[in-house]
Amino acid sequence: MARTYRGQESCPVARTLDVIGQRWTVLILRDLAGGKTRYSELLESLQGIPSNLLSERLKQLEADGIVTRSFYSEHPPRAAYALTEKGTALGRVLVAMYRWGTDWEPVEDRTPVVTPA
Amino acid sequence: MARTYRGQESCPVARTLDVIGQRWTVLILRDLAGGKTRYSELLESLQGIPSNLLSERLKQLEADGIVTRSFYSEHPPRAAYALTEKGTALGRVLVAMYRWGTDWEPVEDRTPVVTPA
Repeated sequence: MARTYRGQESCPVARTLDVIGQRWTVLILRDLAGGKTRYSELLESLQGIPSNLLSERLKQLEADGIVTRSFYSEHPPRAAYALTEKGTALGRVLVAMYRWGTDWEPVEDRTPVVTPA
Repeated sequence: MARTYRGQESCPVARTLDVIGQRWTVLILRDLAGGKTRYSELLESLQGIPSNLLSERLKQLEADGIVTRSFYSEHPPRAAYALTEKGTALGRVLVAMYRWGTDWEPVEDRTPVVTPA
């Protein structure tokens, strides 16, 4: 057990966040749900993600039963990633986020709060 | 503009994440959606959140048009928080997360990936 939100385990929202709440994870799931399967495709789509972070996130998602990894080439070893049934079920969360972003958050509207460094 | 996911602004999922993707934010929204209105109630519910972080998150949510703040007492000043229409519309994301957590993430099942310190 390595939950981000200790003391919140009785709440299903918090448990979901423990799985998908880390930076980049939802966008990795978005790309896998959109049909990307290879590490290099994910790295290209997720502009700005450090490669070791992508690797770490995929390992955690595999440990959590969200993603499966298989090898489409053995020499050199090349992995393909896919969503499990459990991972595919997160599609409803992605769809809800997609709709809210479309309806309520146009590209240019965000106002940042500037906090002292 | 202070987006977390630069280069992803054309994706509504990423734009939603820019608003709700920071640690604790979704749980603050959960509590506001559940009827909590006072800072002290939020602080008590969100065991483990540092008080200055709760304050910072609420300010950002207010700047993003998700939360409104009003004063129910002037001496001493005491604020009440509530979701705006834009914030209430995030309820669908919360419901999708709630359902997934209920269906797929029982309390005791998470397997952590241990990474070197």
